[in-house]
Amino acid sequence: MKLPRNTIRRLSHYLRCLDILDLKGVQLVKSRELACMCRVSDSLVRRDLSYFGDFGKKGVGYNLPELRERILQIMGLDKVRKVVLCGVGNIGTALLRYPFKERNFEIMAAFDTDPKKIGMVINGIRVYPAEKTSELTSELGVEIGIIAVPPEAAQKTADLLVEGGIEGILSFALIPIEPKKDVVIQYVEIATELEILSFEIEERKRRR
Amino acid sequence: MKLPRNTIRRLSHYLRCLDILDLKGVQLVKSRELACMCRVSDSLVRRDLSYFGDFGKKGVGYNLPELRERILQIMGLDKVRKVVLCGVGNIGTALLRYPFKERNFEIMAAFDTDPKKIGMVINGIRVYPAEKTSELTSELGVEIGIIAVPPEAAQKTADLLVEGGIEGILSFALIPIEPKKDVVIQYVEIATELEILSFEIEERKRRR
Repeated sequence: MKLPRNTIRRLSHYLRCLDILDLKGVQLVKSRELACMCRVSDSLVRRDLSYFGDFGKKGVGYNLPELRERILQIMGLDKVRKVVLCGVGNIGTALLRYPFKERNFEIMAAFDTDPKKIGMVINGIRVYPAEKTSELTSELGVEIGIIAVPPEAAQKTADLLVEGGIEGILSFALIPIEPKKDVVIQYVEIATELEILSFEIEERKRRR
Repeated sequence: MKLPRNTIRRLSHYLRCLDILDLKGVQLVKSRELACMCRVSDSLVRRDLSYFGDFGKKGVGYNLPELRERILQIMGLDKVRKVVLCGVGNIGTALLRYPFKERNFEIMAAFDTDPKKIGMVINGIRVYPAEKTSELTSELGVEIGIIAVPPEAAQKTADLLVEGGIEGILSFALIPIEPKKDVVIQYVEIATELEILSFEIEERKRRR
C-alpha cells in the first residue's frame, strides 16, 4: 500500500503536536484536538491514522504515549540515523546547531572545501575536507547526506555521497540533482520558496 | 490562466541557471542547455517558457539577458520587496545572513521575544521586540513576513504579521498556520522534510 505523501507530512505534524501535549502531561488525546492544532479536519486525522491500524478507542481518544511511539516507528524515527552535512555556510552552520537529535538524527561529520573551515568543530561536529566525503560516509555507515553547498557544487556533492553508500539526500541546493544510484531525495529550497511567494503576490496584484 | 505550480518552481531554477551562465559571459542559451542544467527535458523547458509568449528564435536559442529579465518580471523579482523576519534563532540568524538581496528582497527588521537578542544588529538588520511586529510591519510597508519561531508561537506571529498588512508569509515553523486574512503562505519545514526522508528510507527497507 502506497501512502499519500501528504499523510506522511501530516504524521510529522501530529508528532509535533503530540510532543507539545506530552510536555503538558496530556495522556489521552482526541482526534479533534490534533485536528485543531494542525488546522485540518477531524475526519482527516482519523483517516490518516487509520492507515496504520486501530489506534484509538471511540469517544475516549488515543493513548498519547502509544500513539506517539507508533508514529515514531512508522516514520523510522525510533532508531538513530547517521547523517553527514556537506557545506558549512550560513545555512549549513545553522543546521549543525539544529536539534535534529530530538528525532534521533545524529550528524557525524561535516564537509567543506574552504581550508579555513576544515578542522573547525561546531556543536561537537568536526568539519572535514570535502574530498573525504565518500570515504568517511562509507566508514561511518552514514544513511543520510544533507547538501548545503552552492548550486554549482550540488551534483558533484551528491555523487560523492552516493559513492559513500548513502540511502537518502536532503538537499538545500537551489537546483535539482540527479543521483547516480536510486536514492531518496528531498529538497528544501529556501530562496525558491521565497521567489514562488513573490510570484503569487504579484499574480494577486495583477488580478486586482 | 492558472500556471502549474511546478512551472513557477522551474522558472526559479531556470533563473538560477541563467545567473550561472551569465557569469560565464554566455549571451545566447538553448533550451537544451537549460534542460540539461536543471535536469528536465528539453520540451518541458520550451513548454514552460511558451506560457509567457514567444521568447526564443528557432535553432538560435534565447537571448540570455532578455530571457532573464522577462523571468524576473514574471516572478515579480524586478522590484524591491520589503521583508521582516520573526524569530532570531539558529535558522533565523542564518536567514538574516542569506543573500536574499540578490533577488531584490530586503529584510527591513527582525523580531524576537528574547531580551538578550533585542537591539542586536545582524548583517545590518536590527532585532526589535516581538510585540512591535504589527506596528513596524505596517509603518515600513512590508509585504512579506518570514516566520522562524517555535511551532507554539507560529500562529500568534502570523496573526501579528497579518494585522500589520502583510501580503505573504514564508513559514519555517513546523506546523500549519491559518491566516486571519487571505494572504499567500509558503512553508519551508526543514525537520519535516528530514522526517519524510526517514520514512521513505524505512519504507524501502521494509520492501526489500
